[in-house]
Amino acid sequence: MCARQLTDFSRLCVHTITTKPWSIEEATDRYAAAGMKGVTVWRQWLDGRDIVKVGLNLRAAGMEVFSLCRGGFFPAADAAGRRAAVDDNLKAVDEAEALGAPLIVLVCGAVPGQPLEESRNQIADGIAAVLDRAEQAGIKLGIEPLHPMYADTRSAVNTIRQANDICDRLGAPHLGVVVDVYHLWWDPALNSEIERSGRTRRLLAFHVCDWRTPTEDLLNDRGLMGEGCINVPQIRGWMEAAGFDGFIEVEIFSHRYWAKDQTMFLENIKEAYLKHT
Amino acid sequence: MCARQLTDFSRLCVHTITTKPWSIEEATDRYAAAGMKGVTVWRQWLDGRDIVKVGLNLRAAGMEVFSLCRGGFFPAADAAGRRAAVDDNLKAVDEAEALGAPLIVLVCGAVPGQPLEESRNQIADGIAAVLDRAEQAGIKLGIEPLHPMYADTRSAVNTIRQANDICDRLGAPHLGVVVDVYHLWWDPALNSEIERSGRTRRLLAFHVCDWRTPTEDLLNDRGLMGEGCINVPQIRGWMEAAGFDGFIEVEIFSHRYWAKDQTMFLENIKEAYLKHT
Repeated sequence: MCARQLTDFSRLCVHTITTKPWSIEEATDRYAAAGMKGVTVWRQWLDGRDIVKVGLNLRAAGMEVFSLCRGGFFPAADAAGRRAAVDDNLKAVDEAEALGAPLIVLVCGAVPGQPLEESRNQIADGIAAVLDRAEQAGIKLGIEPLHPMYADTRSAVNTIRQANDICDRLGAPHLGVVVDVYHLWWDPALNSEIERSGRTRRLLAFHVCDWRTPTEDLLNDRGLMGEGCINVPQIRGWMEAAGFDGFIEVEIFSHRYWAKDQTMFLENIKEAYLKHT
Repeated sequence: MCARQLTDFSRLCVHTITTKPWSIEEATDRYAAAGMKGVTVWRQWLDGRDIVKVGLNLRAAGMEVFSLCRGGFFPAADAAGRRAAVDDNLKAVDEAEALGAPLIVLVCGAVPGQPLEESRNQIADGIAAVLDRAEQAGIKLGIEPLHPMYADTRSAVNTIRQANDICDRLGAPHLGVVVDVYHLWWDPALNSEIERSGRTRRLLAFHVCDWRTPTEDLLNDRGLMGEGCINVPQIRGWMEAAGFDGFIEVEIFSHRYWAKDQTMFLENIKEAYLKHT
């Protein structure tokens, strides 16, 4: 299965964290100038801002606000912590509504030393507690499984199979799955589980970057597509065969790239998008 | 399922790489003085040595030579590379035979950018090419699945399910599985796949250490048992419920610990072994 080559930028979306040095105002101008079509806004970029206005400005500049990143982090050692997590996710729904973002990406969370099984149950309970409010707001929730190297602190959901299982368990039509190639590329079940997500209409988003060799930092050493060992076009092909035709979101955490000229970096992204995505 | 607490060192085994600063001669003396019962020898420790004599010395000092670490690294971009890998594994069988080690640990290998599916097939083919010679030498081969963060260069086999599948495919009674908590702790299928390995008499070895939070280096920042988030006693309980009663091998790669007094480190290991394993 090989995806058809991308020939324009109509599906290109960038995460604000990809160009971390830019504020939301600067990102809005620069993305528009570079011809970006979609934006995923990280919540930190909204601090102290009029969120409705941020969304209006992005749309006025010709872009779609595709998702808000990120809710989640449901597990906690005590009930108060878990309630606070649910409250924060309800707040994220408010923010997504104000922003005009139809999707919230969930990084599910984990507590070091707490049994993963317990964290996984707390995650399902936490999501369940937010579902009604999200549905009422018309906002989808997307479970993003994270690479197993983040199972200690960031996510006890580490495979797309687990994400699909949670969706089955909760059975809500506005709950789905976010596929990030960085987290899932190694999984022998990836294609079959993408098919499963597609069959149940749960493929909500697709994040791309690459895995560098060697990777020097567990968090902030992601590569541009084409710089590493992930066959991004193959995975995109699997997504599209499963019915996904939405944005292709470039989400890169990289000390190397954040230290560079961000306008130039956007051009690097566009080139890598056409050649290696 | 909780394992019965360990109260003596009769099942304690150390990998020579755990005390990297020590030569095999120094390790033999120091391990014996500390009361170690088993040793897994890494091949680099045999460079320039009379291998038969190394084995005799270890046994004379009261220790069992449990395994030779490591064979594997079967995938390669061309046929010559794959033939060289098989030759190196045949050499490992010779070394294990000379050393008197009944098991060779296989770190299966991967080639950056080569499709994982292709590497996985090359791994099965490579193991198949070594099986007869290993059987003739009375030596078992143990597939050690590595953490998905090593899927780019070190192993395309990243779950115990994949290791069990390769064993099913090749069907050799002297081929089995090595469980390392560092690589596999996050896997929701770990317990059920350990049971599967046990049912088919394939549980060959058990490696322990811990996952630190934060982990600062992808390779050399492993923790002592109890220092991180892995529930080692629980996984040991699963191993024992599945019929495993062999050595518990301490395999720690750590710049921090290698920089310390290694005799003191051995004492730390013994304490962590009784308290957190």
